[in-house]
Amino acid sequence: MTAPVAVTCGDPLGVGAEVALAAWSELRRADALGPEDAVFIGPLELWARAADLVELSQDLRSELVCLAPDPDAAGDYAHIPEIGAVATAVAGCLAGRYGAVCTGPIHKKSLLERGFPFQGHTPYLAWLCGLSPEEAVMLFAGGRLQVALATVHRPLRDVPETLTLRDIVWAGRAAVDLLVRGLGQSAPRVAVCGLNPHAGEEGALGDEEQTKVGPAVGVLQRQGVDAHGPFPADTLFPAAARGDWDLVIALYHDQGLIPVKTLDFGRSVNITAGLPIWRTSVDHGTARDIAWTGSADPKHMVSALTMARRLAAGPG
Amino acid sequence: MTAPVAVTCGDPLGVGAEVALAAWSELRRADALGPEDAVFIGPLELWARAADLVELSQDLRSELVCLAPDPDAAGDYAHIPEIGAVATAVAGCLAGRYGAVCTGPIHKKSLLERGFPFQGHTPYLAWLCGLSPEEAVMLFAGGRLQVALATVHRPLRDVPETLTLRDIVWAGRAAVDLLVRGLGQSAPRVAVCGLNPHAGEEGALGDEEQTKVGPAVGVLQRQGVDAHGPFPADTLFPAAARGDWDLVIALYHDQGLIPVKTLDFGRSVNITAGLPIWRTSVDHGTARDIAWTGSADPKHMVSALTMARRLAAGPG
Repeated sequence: MTAPVAVTCGDPLGVGAEVALAAWSELRRADALGPEDAVFIGPLELWARAADLVELSQDLRSELVCLAPDPDAAGDYAHIPEIGAVATAVAGCLAGRYGAVCTGPIHKKSLLERGFPFQGHTPYLAWLCGLSPEEAVMLFAGGRLQVALATVHRPLRDVPETLTLRDIVWAGRAAVDLLVRGLGQSAPRVAVCGLNPHAGEEGALGDEEQTKVGPAVGVLQRQGVDAHGPFPADTLFPAAARGDWDLVIALYHDQGLIPVKTLDFGRSVNITAGLPIWRTSVDHGTARDIAWTGSADPKHMVSALTMARRLAAGPG
Repeated sequence: MTAPVAVTCGDPLGVGAEVALAAWSELRRADALGPEDAVFIGPLELWARAADLVELSQDLRSELVCLAPDPDAAGDYAHIPEIGAVATAVAGCLAGRYGAVCTGPIHKKSLLERGFPFQGHTPYLAWLCGLSPEEAVMLFAGGRLQVALATVHRPLRDVPETLTLRDIVWAGRAAVDLLVRGLGQSAPRVAVCGLNPHAGEEGALGDEEQTKVGPAVGVLQRQGVDAHGPFPADTLFPAAARGDWDLVIALYHDQGLIPVKTLDFGRSVNITAGLPIWRTSVDHGTARDIAWTGSADPKHMVSALTMARRLAAGPG
C-alpha cells in the first residue's frame, strides 16, 4: 500500500486550503485518488472552513483526514501554522508515514514579519532534510516540457557572473535522478540551454557557453548522464516540446519558466528534486485578493496532487 | 494596385532561393498571391536552378519575374550577389516600385570574409534607409504572440547594464506604429516584461524594473501608447497568448524568442519595425547542410511572404 500524500495548507489568508480540498474532491469523485491517499495538515478550523466553502459532499467529509501541525516538528516556528504544517509533513515523510508532500502557497513577506527567515519553501525543506539550500533543485514536469533550473531567484544581473559549473551539474543530476527513480523514465535525453543569444555564437555573443556550460555538459556525460549542449534556448524548447529531448536544463528563472508556463500553464507541476523526500507544489501564489471567495481555480492543485501521488506510488 | 513584394535570394549556398520559390508556388497555387505580387531578386542562374529543384510548373515559370541585382544600388558590395539583391530591393521600395522586402537568410561569417562589415541584415537595412542601426526594431507577428525586442544580440552579461530606457521606448513606439499603420490594429494593448525573476519582487530580486523599465513604461504612456508593466515575464507570455495583450516588449533575445518559437514556430514572422519600408524575414538560418537537396521546409517562407504581401497591401 502506498503511503498517503501530506497536503499542507499554505498561507491561511490565501487560496491554499480551498484549492486543496476542491482538487481532492475532484480527484476523489473521478476515482483518480483512493480514500486514503491524502491527509491534510494545518489548523483544523481552516480545513473545516474550506470544506464548507467548496461544499464538500457528506461522503467525502467522512473520508477527510485533517491533522493539526505538530509543535515539536516545527520547533522555533511552531507559532506559524503554515510552517508547522510543512515541518509536520516533512517529518512524517522522513519517518515513512507519508509518501510525498504537496505544499500550498505561502506568503514570504508575511512569514518574514513573523520571524521565519527562510526565502520560501525550498531552502526550508532542504534545512529540514539536513541538506544545504543549493541541493534542492526546481524541476517542472507533467506537461509537454520537463525543465530543471540551474539558478532560481537571482537578479538577472548576477546570473552570468555567479552561475557555476556546479549549479548546472547538480541540476542535471538531481533532475535525472527524480525522473528515473520517481517517474520511471529510463536514460532521459538531457539538453542544456546556452546563456547568450544563439548560445553565444562560438564566443561572438558571450563566452559562458565555453567557460561554464560546455564543461558542465562534459561533467554530466562523464557521470553517465545522456547530456548535450549548450544549445540556443529559443530553438531548444520547441525541439523539446516536439519530443527531441526529455529534460531541458535552463540556466535562470525566466529562461525555464517562460516556456513552461506558456506551453503547460496549469498542467506543469513544480517538483523539488535533490531531496530525500518527494515534494510537489502548486505553481501559483497565495492569491489573497481572491481567497475565501470560492473563485480560485483548483487545476494547478489537481496537477500537483496527482503528481505527488504518482511519486509516492513509485514507478512500479 | 499593390506594388509587388521583392524577395531576395539570401546566401547562394543556403536554402533561401529554393524555399522562396517553393513558398511562392504554394501560395500561387492556393491563389493566396496574385500573379504580379512578387519579384525575385538575385543571380538569375540561382533562380533557374531553384526553379528546377522545386519542380516549378510551366504555368508558374511563365509568371516568374526574376531580376539580377543592380550593381549601382549595392555600391561597395556589388561583388556580393546576396547583398546586391538586398540593396536593389530596398532601393526599389524607397522608389515605390516594391511594396515590401522579404529577405532570404544570409551567412554572416561568409559575408564578413567577403568584406561586408554589417552584423546581418538589420543594421544594413537601417543604413540603406539613412537611419542608425538602433532605430530598427525586431518584431514577431503572425502567430498567437506579437513580441518586440528591446535588445537583440547582446551577451546576456551586458543586458542589465546596457539596457536603456530608450531601447524600451523605441521598441514600443516602432512596434506599435507597425501594428497600427501596417496591420491595421487599433490601440494595441502593450505589456512590458520585467528583467528579473518575478519582475524583481519590488526590488528584492533586482532593481532595473524601478530604474529603467518602469520609467520607460511611463514615457510610452505619456506618448499615447496603452503601455503597462513591467510584469513577470513567465506569467506575462501565457496571458498574452490568451489574448490579454496585443504586444509584449521583451528586454532581451531569449526572453522574447523562447515563447515565440515555442508557441508559434513556423507561423511567426520576423518583421523589422522602425524603417521607412516594410521588411519581413524567414526565421531560420541558411541551413547550408541541407541546401539544394530539396528537403528544406518552405513553411517559414510561406509565412514571411504572406506577411510581406499583407504589409505591402496595407490595412485597408
